[in-house]
Amino acid sequence: MEEERQPARRPGGRSARVRTAVHRAVTDLIAERGFGNYTVGEVAARAGVADTSVYRRWGTLEALTMDVAITWLTTTSPVPDTGSLDGDLRAYAANVARDVTGPDGLAVLRLVIALSSAGDDGVRAREAFLAERSRQLQVMLDRARDRGEHPPEVLDVVDHLLAPMYVRVLFGAVPLTPDYVDGLTGRLLARTP
Amino acid sequence: MEEERQPARRPGGRSARVRTAVHRAVTDLIAERGFGNYTVGEVAARAGVADTSVYRRWGTLEALTMDVAITWLTTTSPVPDTGSLDGDLRAYAANVARDVTGPDGLAVLRLVIALSSAGDDGVRAREAFLAERSRQLQVMLDRARDRGEHPPEVLDVVDHLLAPMYVRVLFGAVPLTPDYVDGLTGRLLARTP
Repeated sequence: MEEERQPARRPGGRSARVRTAVHRAVTDLIAERGFGNYTVGEVAARAGVADTSVYRRWGTLEALTMDVAITWLTTTSPVPDTGSLDGDLRAYAANVARDVTGPDGLAVLRLVIALSSAGDDGVRAREAFLAERSRQLQVMLDRARDRGEHPPEVLDVVDHLLAPMYVRVLFGAVPLTPDYVDGLTGRLLARTP
Repeated sequence: MEEERQPARRPGGRSARVRTAVHRAVTDLIAERGFGNYTVGEVAARAGVADTSVYRRWGTLEALTMDVAITWLTTTSPVPDTGSLDGDLRAYAANVARDVTGPDGLAVLRLVIALSSAGDDGVRAREAFLAERSRQLQVMLDRARDRGEHPPEVLDVVDHLLAPMYVRVLFGAVPLTPDYVDGLTGRLLARTP
């Protein structure tokens, strides 16, 4: 099989379809078996592509896994822009709750956690994931500050909005009800006049 | 090898030493390889006991893993009894921070998380872990209520004291400084007059 030689990386073309199929295969395998309990060959077979396609584009299983995690992060739970800190945080919390309890949420959370034991590449992937999440939050909080509001720090949002939801999902204490999620936001905002 | 036939389960005797060695082996293997990536044979070899000793006492690898998790939980991070809610919560938070950043903390957290993908036995083990943690906390909070104090709910302690520390450890954002840990407690107590 000689896929991806011609129209390489044309958006929406074969290259994009291969990428989507390979990402889907990785996410499914992580969900079924846990992080790391699969090979490039298994990913390729499930995605319906040749092993060489995976190696050529991603190089290693770790690099592929990192790409999946970062892509998931940057395309889910986008930070909203509602015009107020209160509106942004409530919408963001609802987005996170939806995504983290969705079909891939637990798998990706486990993936980020497992990265710590995946050597230097894994640690770099985890750092990139967290840096991207922090950057997204900072944009939202900076907008609030520019409007004259008094936003919490990024780490407060992580500790008191994300961490409770992450731990409940990781420990199986779901569902995250709308009242619960909104309560976390209300509690966080009550700290910042 | 015919260990454990005679003086079975005598505290401090051979049976207790076997149990300690086997628990140690499991914790070390989880820390090195992640949850589930080891066999009864490997556990037994590292503990210096026969495979049959492990099978006879624990039955399955899952049951052994559950025993390790529950033992770790019930013998670390004990709930203190200082005479005040403020003192109890601050001491408890400091205990958890110490244990969860200690040599076995990350391994046990990962173990509890991994249990969710370990079938019904795993889910039962995780439930038992969480139920025991909740029970310990409830005792401490009930004492405060009996003294006329106004303690938070158990789930608030989980969400705003344990979850931030767990997530920071799981995502590698350590150390947990004393100021940080005490700040979590202060924030939680500020909610309950």
